[in-house]
Amino acid sequence: MRNESVTLSSLDALLYPRSVAVLGASQNPNKLGYIQVKALLDGGFAGEIYPINPKAEDIAGLTCYPSLADVPGPIDLAIFCVSAEHVQSSLHDCANKNVKGAIIFASGYSETGEEGARQQAMMARIAKKNGIRLIGPNCVGLVNTLNGLVGTFSPAVMSYPLKDERSVGYVSQSGAFGVLTYMAAAQHGLSFNYFITVGNEVDTEFADFVEYMIHDPKTKVISGYLEGAKDPERLRKLAEEALDCNKPIVVMKTGRSSAGSRAAASHTGSLAGSDQLYDAFFKQTGIVRANDYEEIISFSKLFLSGKLPTGRNTVIITSSGGRGINEADRCEANGLQIIPLSEKTKVRIKESVPPFASTANPIDLTAAASVTNPELFIAPMKALLEDPEVDNIIFTEFPMNWGSDHPLLQEFIQLCKESDKFVLVATFPLQGMSIPKGAAEMEKNGIPVITGDLNPIGSLAKLVAYSEKYSKKKLTSHQEEQRRSGGSVESKQILQNLLKPGKTLSEFEAGQVLAQYGIPTARKALAVTVEEAIIQANEIGYPVVLKIDSNQILHKTEANGIRLNIQSGEEVRKAYADILQSAKMYKPDAVINGVTVHEMLPKGTEVIVGVSNDPVFGPVIMFGLGGIFVETFKDISFRLAPLTRQDALEMIEELKARAILKGVRGQAPADQEAIIDVLLHVSDLMMDAEGLIEELDINPIIVYENGLKAADALIVSSSEVLEKTEVGG
Amino acid sequence: MRNESVTLSSLDALLYPRSVAVLGASQNPNKLGYIQVKALLDGGFAGEIYPINPKAEDIAGLTCYPSLADVPGPIDLAIFCVSAEHVQSSLHDCANKNVKGAIIFASGYSETGEEGARQQAMMARIAKKNGIRLIGPNCVGLVNTLNGLVGTFSPAVMSYPLKDERSVGYVSQSGAFGVLTYMAAAQHGLSFNYFITVGNEVDTEFADFVEYMIHDPKTKVISGYLEGAKDPERLRKLAEEALDCNKPIVVMKTGRSSAGSRAAASHTGSLAGSDQLYDAFFKQTGIVRANDYEEIISFSKLFLSGKLPTGRNTVIITSSGGRGINEADRCEANGLQIIPLSEKTKVRIKESVPPFASTANPIDLTAAASVTNPELFIAPMKALLEDPEVDNIIFTEFPMNWGSDHPLLQEFIQLCKESDKFVLVATFPLQGMSIPKGAAEMEKNGIPVITGDLNPIGSLAKLVAYSEKYSKKKLTSHQEEQRRSGGSVESKQILQNLLKPGKTLSEFEAGQVLAQYGIPTARKALAVTVEEAIIQANEIGYPVVLKIDSNQILHKTEANGIRLNIQSGEEVRKAYADILQSAKMYKPDAVINGVTVHEMLPKGTEVIVGVSNDPVFGPVIMFGLGGIFVETFKDISFRLAPLTRQDALEMIEELKARAILKGVRGQAPADQEAIIDVLLHVSDLMMDAEGLIEELDINPIIVYENGLKAADALIVSSSEVLEKTEVGG
Repeated sequence: MRNESVTLSSLDALLYPRSVAVLGASQNPNKLGYIQVKALLDGGFAGEIYPINPKAEDIAGLTCYPSLADVPGPIDLAIFCVSAEHVQSSLHDCANKNVKGAIIFASGYSETGEEGARQQAMMARIAKKNGIRLIGPNCVGLVNTLNGLVGTFSPAVMSYPLKDERSVGYVSQSGAFGVLTYMAAAQHGLSFNYFITVGNEVDTEFADFVEYMIHDPKTKVISGYLEGAKDPERLRKLAEEALDCNKPIVVMKTGRSSAGSRAAASHTGSLAGSDQLYDAFFKQTGIVRANDYEEIISFSKLFLSGKLPTGRNTVIITSSGGRGINEADRCEANGLQIIPLSEKTKVRIKESVPPFASTANPIDLTAAASVTNPELFIAPMKALLEDPEVDNIIFTEFPMNWGSDHPLLQEFIQLCKESDKFVLVATFPLQGMSIPKGAAEMEKNGIPVITGDLNPIGSLAKLVAYSEKYSKKKLTSHQEEQRRSGGSVESKQILQNLLKPGKTLSEFEAGQVLAQYGIPTARKALAVTVEEAIIQANEIGYPVVLKIDSNQILHKTEANGIRLNIQSGEEVRKAYADILQSAKMYKPDAVINGVTVHEMLPKGTEVIVGVSNDPVFGPVIMFGLGGIFVETFKDISFRLAPLTRQDALEMIEELKARAILKGVRGQAPADQEAIIDVLLHVSDLMMDAEGLIEELDINPIIVYENGLKAADALIVSSSEVLEKTEVGG
Repeated sequence: MRNESVTLSSLDALLYPRSVAVLGASQNPNKLGYIQVKALLDGGFAGEIYPINPKAEDIAGLTCYPSLADVPGPIDLAIFCVSAEHVQSSLHDCANKNVKGAIIFASGYSETGEEGARQQAMMARIAKKNGIRLIGPNCVGLVNTLNGLVGTFSPAVMSYPLKDERSVGYVSQSGAFGVLTYMAAAQHGLSFNYFITVGNEVDTEFADFVEYMIHDPKTKVISGYLEGAKDPERLRKLAEEALDCNKPIVVMKTGRSSAGSRAAASHTGSLAGSDQLYDAFFKQTGIVRANDYEEIISFSKLFLSGKLPTGRNTVIITSSGGRGINEADRCEANGLQIIPLSEKTKVRIKESVPPFASTANPIDLTAAASVTNPELFIAPMKALLEDPEVDNIIFTEFPMNWGSDHPLLQEFIQLCKESDKFVLVATFPLQGMSIPKGAAEMEKNGIPVITGDLNPIGSLAKLVAYSEKYSKKKLTSHQEEQRRSGGSVESKQILQNLLKPGKTLSEFEAGQVLAQYGIPTARKALAVTVEEAIIQANEIGYPVVLKIDSNQILHKTEANGIRLNIQSGEEVRKAYADILQSAKMYKPDAVINGVTVHEMLPKGTEVIVGVSNDPVFGPVIMFGLGGIFVETFKDISFRLAPLTRQDALEMIEELKARAILKGVRGQAPADQEAIIDVLLHVSDLMMDAEGLIEELDINPIIVYENGLKAADALIVSSSEVLEKTEVGG
């Protein structure tokens, strides 16, 4: 366990140093060592700046020191503008000078192969031993715009003016994408407070800065670029904390395609899990997944408006029919509903707009509004703001000439302020006509104005989803805590006793485990004599099924070890003998536990629940419908254990074939609550198994209108106790 | 039938007038009538310009005339800067002056309701009677950048410099979207030759200008914005012509969502069919569907490079791992394949790049390439250009400082020129860093350079699809001609005799029709006595099915009028009697034709073929798998009759459930060729029916490994002879 207060204060050395030394400082304006010194000066960094170079007296007007040891005062942060071969000795110098933090740009480490990885490990050891927090190597550094600490050589970063509002932090596993995002954000009027590229994450990693920003009161949104989480469990807990305090984490995660995954794996040396699992991870944790950096920018701007959308019902106001249609398409593609307006609202709108304007949704004010009657833009607002069915109002454009003190703009702002509805101005991204004059005034008052190239509608849909997640979290957090508690002490004991390294449980044993965890299974009993079998069959009730039971015979059908639809004691007698004989022929040396007598289940809807162990994420629970739906259509949903009830519900709702569970072709609907229970019980079971189960498969489960029963189950123990994969640092 | 040469010359009056009069010209610089005169002057229109205003002597330095009649010379085109109430009288003035074309901006016509529609119809009559070609009303006019004819009041249009290359035409059903597209294109360095907004299409319509541009040698790409085609059949023929001469038509079509469709229908008064049918229409005609105007711009730029991609295999060259991954994701999401490179190619690339660069695809040259070693960008090109598996090469960036005469740029251009591979530079859209210096030189030499905000990768995928369509068209055009010929004269005769207005054919009659069109049906015979039934059953072979046959009993199951799995003459006797009795109880007054004896079909894969009549598109053929796939998953594909073999093939391949046809769970694959034949025969049948069939349903068809048989069919005649819907002008 990391000591949190130490973590925070030590990251302060990186983000809030009182003094900075630049190792490898240079007088040559084309060298990194000059650019870095200049960047600190231009950024207005208020602390001490010490250029280090044995051959220069002063650099960019600052006194230069031959070595760290020669610097008169203490040094909090050292920026390494030196090549890889000088990093190690410089790090020793830092240790001697009691430097607390270091930024290392140099590349040539784990990203290049074994020798690089060895060098990197050595760097990590030196830093750890001496209590130096590092970012990098192979990074482009960091910027703190709040104190002018420009700890990067990237010339592009500082070329945009900073805005007053600076409350979005950004942390990136890619230097290049980081710089692009910083620049794009700045171009669109969004200034980050912290901008951090973590490179090879030898010491500090992505999650460290997420944690820092959760506890940082100056940060309202945490954004970033992720290739692979080093420790998903930690990130999960952080995401939970962030959601608790309504501080969204919005990340761009690449590697969706198979080619993308390949490249991601070979890129910064991250161990990237499959993209589908990341999708599950983000959904479960409430981390917002941005498709591109545009969505990071617009999502952040929307969130900073200070309102959370109350739902998906959306109205569009436009002066161009074509644009209205286009935005309506976009809304529906993103899951926002373009609702038909109520008669009452329509009548009220009609009173305030000319007869040729359309009061359908999108509300088309026609070109008259933009050319001659701009006041029409706000005419429908009163009716819409008072309509309880409306959650969001989107303008496809806005009067260009309304300055901040225009009375109509002020009226508009006042109307919006008094309402909890989300109002968004989504303009077209054309030079010279994209941003209305009053945009700054609107944004200051909680009405985001976003150009269409940033996909504001996609981001609004994501903010709606975030808002839903946040509200649910608030409602259910107590319940959820309880859910995570796992099974009873007793059932955990029974489970762990049954699991032996490398052992595959017999169907009977697997059934016992499921029963312990409250998962209904077909009634069954193990018989070791034919008389026992007959007694058990009588007890269970005919028809019954007989199956061979042996830990050495896993494929019972292949062994001809199953008899279905047995109707009487006489038939039990015959089947019992047949099965034993078949088993002997199939595998003469198999240890036969006996024959199991099963209740024969009536027909119902077949579903499958499975679990596999992912090296990054641990137990992954899978749900799908039986037969072709899993095999042919791959219509499967995934979530990571432990599950919440909401997770389980979403697993069902995510299936394309979910309609079948509701009942089709006259069939009764399947018992959804019973399925949710099974998923939650399996989640408990896997948490209790603590890595001892490699694979679990309940296939099929027969679901009825009331209740369900597992017909067959397979549990494979892990061949060795799995350890959580840890990469790097 | 329109006389083509007349059409063309008459549109020339709109696009290539020798003289233009501006009605309602004004001295007030804020008025439309001034702005329009000024726009013609600023645009450099070389012909005569006559401002018309009874109260002014000169406007913007031009002599003003009190009326059209006072103009000394002939007038080809009149631009109406007058309000709706003056349009009619001005149109009469035009007729008297023998004006050949008119642009009418005024709104207040069919888009506002009945009275407006009446005014519009009157306008159409006056124009037609006097041979005046109109565009509008309710439009923003047109621009011909080739002769400086700026026939629009929109001030935005002329504020961008024109490029030399002007060979993309654009025609829009939305004024606002049109102007936005024009401006966005200009900002991205694409100058349209013709820019036309058609407004309410009272005389000329969207397709007229498509036709004009097909025959116009100055146009290489036809682009546009479409809300609804007035005459899809005409547009289909035009699209075919365009494809024949490799002149792509790329249109943005909105109204995908239900809300969008509602708005589109209420917008310019177009009769928009469902979006799904438009999708089918575009696929069949080879019209490229752009998702937004960005794709129009980038698709056009890609096409103007002069190369057509040879396939989907794509390689990405990047200097940022993150960006490479991101673009790889985009490629795969758009159906381009990021192929693993062959060992041979990898070895060759390794020879030319430093050891830390990745030779996987994406090829990651690392930051070294963009900072210190830009020559690395072209190092892998030779190996890639010689690799026969590579079709497309995408750069995520390009050395910024290579001017047009840089030797490495020239070497790069030379390499690309000698290859048929498609090379694309897709840069990031950041101010000041998006476009490399040598971009113009590259574009001149067939290497498009496109910023990421234009979605160049999505457009490349569309160009690949266009290229495939174009190649197939070239290969199969003769065959296709043959396919469209329909059934034989004899079968057509039989079909039309059976179809009576409003009549629903009995299953037996429907079966006869299918048989006539070569669609295999279950063997069946109509028996009017029980003895006949026994003879027929013996002939067909047991087991058989008996069904009631009556034009008044459509729901045979409900009437208890079906007996399955009849094994002997004795059973036929019993079933025959039962069925007749049930039918009498069900509907005592029904006219009973008899009882049909059917071959009982063995199990196979069930599919459904259906046809409905769309008011815009005519017969729409539907294909799907039986049962839940159609009912629950709506997994259906559509195409418009007549079908080509390729259309039929795509209908099968489009199904999500297509895997089932290939055979799952040990089942034999279904006979795909037989399904294609059925689809083509149904298409023939519908063409022969000439609107007499309202609905056709073959459900189910049982498909086997070899061949198939229709088990049941329903044909409903149209209640009246349908006429092709014609809207407006």
